[in-house]
Amino acid sequence: MNDLRFLLNPKSIAILGASSDFTKINGRPLKYLLDKGYAGKIYPVNPKYREIGPLQCYASIDAVPEAADLAVVALPAQFVAQALRDLGRRGVKSAVVFSSGFAEIGEAGRALEREVIAAAQAAGLRLCGPNCLGLINAFDRVIATFGQFADGETPAGPVAFVTQSGAFGTAIAALARRRGLGLGYFVNTGNEGDVDFVGVMRAVLDDARITVGAGYIEGLKDGRGLMALAEQALALGKPLVLTKVGRTRAGARAAVSHTGSLAGADEVFDGVIRGGGIIRARNEEHMLDMVEALANCSLPGGRGLGIITQSGGAGVLMADRAEELGLNVPVLDPATQQALRPVVPGFGATGNPVDVTGQFIAEPGLLREAMNIVLSDPQIHVGIIWLQLMEAHVDTLVGMFEEIKARAAKPFIVCWVAAPDQALRALRERGIAVLRGAEPAVDAAAALAGYAEVRRGWLADKEARAALITHASSPSRLSGSGHGGGAVPTVAAAQWLNEYGVTTARVQLARSAEEAVMAAAALGYPVALKIESPEVLHKTEVQGVALQLTDADAVRQAFAVVIANVKRHEPRARIEGVIVQPMLQGEAELVVGLQNDPVFGLVVMAGLGGIHIEVLKDVAFRKAPVTPTEAGRMLDELRGRAILDGVRGRAPVDRAAVARLISAVSCFGAAETRLKELDLNPVFAGPDGAVAVDWLMVLD
Amino acid sequence: MNDLRFLLNPKSIAILGASSDFTKINGRPLKYLLDKGYAGKIYPVNPKYREIGPLQCYASIDAVPEAADLAVVALPAQFVAQALRDLGRRGVKSAVVFSSGFAEIGEAGRALEREVIAAAQAAGLRLCGPNCLGLINAFDRVIATFGQFADGETPAGPVAFVTQSGAFGTAIAALARRRGLGLGYFVNTGNEGDVDFVGVMRAVLDDARITVGAGYIEGLKDGRGLMALAEQALALGKPLVLTKVGRTRAGARAAVSHTGSLAGADEVFDGVIRGGGIIRARNEEHMLDMVEALANCSLPGGRGLGIITQSGGAGVLMADRAEELGLNVPVLDPATQQALRPVVPGFGATGNPVDVTGQFIAEPGLLREAMNIVLSDPQIHVGIIWLQLMEAHVDTLVGMFEEIKARAAKPFIVCWVAAPDQALRALRERGIAVLRGAEPAVDAAAALAGYAEVRRGWLADKEARAALITHASSPSRLSGSGHGGGAVPTVAAAQWLNEYGVTTARVQLARSAEEAVMAAAALGYPVALKIESPEVLHKTEVQGVALQLTDADAVRQAFAVVIANVKRHEPRARIEGVIVQPMLQGEAELVVGLQNDPVFGLVVMAGLGGIHIEVLKDVAFRKAPVTPTEAGRMLDELRGRAILDGVRGRAPVDRAAVARLISAVSCFGAAETRLKELDLNPVFAGPDGAVAVDWLMVLD
Repeated sequence: MNDLRFLLNPKSIAILGASSDFTKINGRPLKYLLDKGYAGKIYPVNPKYREIGPLQCYASIDAVPEAADLAVVALPAQFVAQALRDLGRRGVKSAVVFSSGFAEIGEAGRALEREVIAAAQAAGLRLCGPNCLGLINAFDRVIATFGQFADGETPAGPVAFVTQSGAFGTAIAALARRRGLGLGYFVNTGNEGDVDFVGVMRAVLDDARITVGAGYIEGLKDGRGLMALAEQALALGKPLVLTKVGRTRAGARAAVSHTGSLAGADEVFDGVIRGGGIIRARNEEHMLDMVEALANCSLPGGRGLGIITQSGGAGVLMADRAEELGLNVPVLDPATQQALRPVVPGFGATGNPVDVTGQFIAEPGLLREAMNIVLSDPQIHVGIIWLQLMEAHVDTLVGMFEEIKARAAKPFIVCWVAAPDQALRALRERGIAVLRGAEPAVDAAAALAGYAEVRRGWLADKEARAALITHASSPSRLSGSGHGGGAVPTVAAAQWLNEYGVTTARVQLARSAEEAVMAAAALGYPVALKIESPEVLHKTEVQGVALQLTDADAVRQAFAVVIANVKRHEPRARIEGVIVQPMLQGEAELVVGLQNDPVFGLVVMAGLGGIHIEVLKDVAFRKAPVTPTEAGRMLDELRGRAILDGVRGRAPVDRAAVARLISAVSCFGAAETRLKELDLNPVFAGPDGAVAVDWLMVLD
Repeated sequence: MNDLRFLLNPKSIAILGASSDFTKINGRPLKYLLDKGYAGKIYPVNPKYREIGPLQCYASIDAVPEAADLAVVALPAQFVAQALRDLGRRGVKSAVVFSSGFAEIGEAGRALEREVIAAAQAAGLRLCGPNCLGLINAFDRVIATFGQFADGETPAGPVAFVTQSGAFGTAIAALARRRGLGLGYFVNTGNEGDVDFVGVMRAVLDDARITVGAGYIEGLKDGRGLMALAEQALALGKPLVLTKVGRTRAGARAAVSHTGSLAGADEVFDGVIRGGGIIRARNEEHMLDMVEALANCSLPGGRGLGIITQSGGAGVLMADRAEELGLNVPVLDPATQQALRPVVPGFGATGNPVDVTGQFIAEPGLLREAMNIVLSDPQIHVGIIWLQLMEAHVDTLVGMFEEIKARAAKPFIVCWVAAPDQALRALRERGIAVLRGAEPAVDAAAALAGYAEVRRGWLADKEARAALITHASSPSRLSGSGHGGGAVPTVAAAQWLNEYGVTTARVQLARSAEEAVMAAAALGYPVALKIESPEVLHKTEVQGVALQLTDADAVRQAFAVVIANVKRHEPRARIEGVIVQPMLQGEAELVVGLQNDPVFGLVVMAGLGGIHIEVLKDVAFRKAPVTPTEAGRMLDELRGRAILDGVRGRAPVDRAAVARLISAVSCFGAAETRLKELDLNPVFAGPDGAVAVDWLMVLD
């Protein structure tokens, strides 16, 4: 459990300023540790008392008989730094600092916080906080918190929950408890002066008793750390579900490059973590719905959902939701339907959803038979059973679900609407996921199927990923070859991109009208002319582009017009000439770009061109580099992806070629560290491949 | 309460085949009526008993001393028709038929159901069912159901709930009860042999004790009835919230016309009910979230949301959701922020969301002060207070919320996560909406604001609506003027549309190349030629279109090519000539159409053209006719609506002109009853107006 083991699993805990009033902030942890049976040593420190409850109390940290693994600090802000120095001197290894009055109150607090961090570093202490509720390790009954959550039961379980917010985190933890979802860890990282969300999550996922990570975050500095965490979670096969707020505001953040301005940073976050196999929840309930399934169910082998219901309507609602989430609700095999027929009443349905009708109230056994049959269908990978109320039949039903669970190799979820409390308790004790409504149940099933697929894909893509990294770490010959900062000339940029496998339109620089005519003849008509100037980044804005030129006269005339236009619009621009390139056609127009994200570093973006990107913001992001397989997933995420399959009589495009181009661009970005911005817009894609038609490359 | 009063509020109830076993289907209603204190007369009918419990039992319906208002029928299917005839003879006015074995089991059942319906009609009986759970009128303690829901308390309240599904409806009713949401009516309409969802909802909304309608539907035959219900609900100022399943499947239904094939019937339903002011819920919880707010809160005067929270993160999550739903979260007035400063701790926030921080746990009064100040801000129309747990402070907090409610003229919603049960009960008893999570709370606030806006708009648009109806009921001179069925010739269709105020491109029919040249000269170059043939509905598919013709030669040549192309592709087509029209330009391309929906009759569709409609299915529907204001709302619903505001340097289009065109098209359709299909595709819109460039009009 790396270097946070003293923080997360201390064998001894000192409580500075411990109070005998167990309702106070510095009395509560003491009470919790005693009540919940912490097995380690507890050292209250307070000169006012000789003892507190059954414990001896010490006048100072120096009086404590050993160097405690963890100290709980709830002193006023201005005393915290000194306290940490004292703790360090005594050899204490870590501290939880509840105290507020730091960065959250403004500049004065920030100064104080810097002092506290420096003191902790100097003292070699790992620090949780300041301004945090503290932490719980429920396995080992470490209750180093004053939060309301600990007032109730804190049973251990396979879920680790780490939260940047104290208040919201407490609410989420309480909701998890109501579901019988045991939180092995509850950690509130507060101001993250030292340990942060990523560090804590990495440590707790390493605990073999944890099988699922759940997190609530508001902001993230260490994007690279998050990606390392994601990789670790995938390697361990432990799903990680995050709620991050700020979905809509992020758009307001300034973005440097052109492509960056199209998508807010939250979209970057969303795409990047998806690429890392992290599951994003839209709110607290959604997160817990998914966590409940992930903690209780095995992973399905595919996306086939079998639905058993006593209400046709609920079945339709679940089928609706399944379609929205990309799950299949396949019509069951004829053999399966045949087997169901003696079980399901005549006016029920055997197709899928399977409707056992109200008859099931009289004969609850129907449900077990039906579920066993449905789960045996080869197209079905995960099941949902929908029922409601049934106050009078709780024991029978619980027993039945237990039997199904014992027998079935495939996972299933119970959706029990308005369930009696004892039913929920009994099912959860038996490790059966039980959700409150039809949509949450399908959301949870989709999380199971989606995570299973992501992990399979991650395992399958391992070699390709390793190859990428090798590739990305070997920059090309060109990288040091004398380009200054700013925009790279078009022809040089093309050569450089080609070297990475990015196909670009053929281009020639022409310094005179006659050179342009010669270039056009060499490239083949019709051609386009585009101004070439280091000062002109957006060529159409200065009327620096002429298209569809079909003969030498047109080229000559266009050359003069383009040069004149640019001189008029940008009198100071140094004009190198014009770029001549053949006119190309594609079935679909894309935009591919690289940008430097302040959190994640270099990210690659892909989207459909034109209104898709400008109006609909239909783009996908990933941390660069990406494998072609992962790039293909980016395309799958686009709302307008049907364009790539051919619409209005157009041919389908070569998606693999587009994916390879995206991957190649991402490798370029990962290797060429001087790159500031790269924007291929448009990229034309057709049945025969994908080619960049215009590009802007800017170096630092 | 019209002609369903005997069904919904009977003064006397006969129970055919009543059982003394109160666990049986025909024993349960008797038990419920007795237990819950029905004040009318109860007449058990069963020759097997002299009495059941405290009641005399009658050997037959004829032996009952009066003609009961309502009879409960739970006989086997084959005996139901005769029973209804007997009831009719005795003068009984209505019946609830629980019995199943009718249309739901297939053809044999359908025949039996037709017999039952005929028997009821002949007997002058209103019939609920067959195959239904029955109904509850909780105000008058009419419990004519055998459903599980009646096993618990069924307190009366301002919500009427009507459901087509028995099982799902029971679940929803049970969830409503858990929220303390009183259902004045619970009616399951089952197979709807006679009374249907619409009829029941119309009747119960007329009850002054009902303020909100909630419904669950799976399918609807009487779309016009639903629209009449919507109008009634708006006139009464009683919001109507519906859950309809089948959101994604509907796309599979065959649609006759071209535009119809682009949007499934569920999209039609969605647009049409929105136009009728009905609120659609996506699932049962979402419906109850909105109903809870609508039943407890006054209507806000605008879309300004004030958020008070003890967690910054929850505030961000609510702001995210508010933005998604089109609510404003305005920065509070400087004066409001000034007033908040002494109340909110220094490290809290006063902008909006207002964060009172964890300090509120020590000083709960903060919350009351802050809420009163926020609600007094002129930009704020509805408030949400977010808190969590607070087990120890329930009484204080409940008292506080009660004070806020007493004092505030503006509505507010409490979002109390992981709330103690007694807090929920106490708040609901006091008529305070309290929701379980941040997103549901914002959903509910958005429903309040949205409904308020819809109703204000409906009141304001009253005269325009009345004018439309007058207009629509006076068909034009042209309607009888000799067009046979099938496609109307282009020029005639244009004249006809123009008469209704629909602007079309100028068109002339040319029967020869020379006529085409003359027409082009008259219309002005460049022009387009399009084949004119009653057999050719899709002109580009037969290469029957030539665009951008700039001179007489080009026109002559194109004429020959177009005619030859069509003769090759469609040798049997009668060719009338070609249509000549000037080439037009627009900043945005739209599609406007009319189609006959099997449920709602004539509906008008509007969408953005090209990939928006073909790939993204970005269209809006309304029942025709619509006012220009309502047509403007259709444009507001388009995901790509930003196109209309001008993108890529284009000028914004005249939205009012587009809305007028849509309204004019809808009036055309409403008046011209022979119309089968009308498709304007494309319509070009620009800063100076909107004009149809191509149109296809088909008559019956």
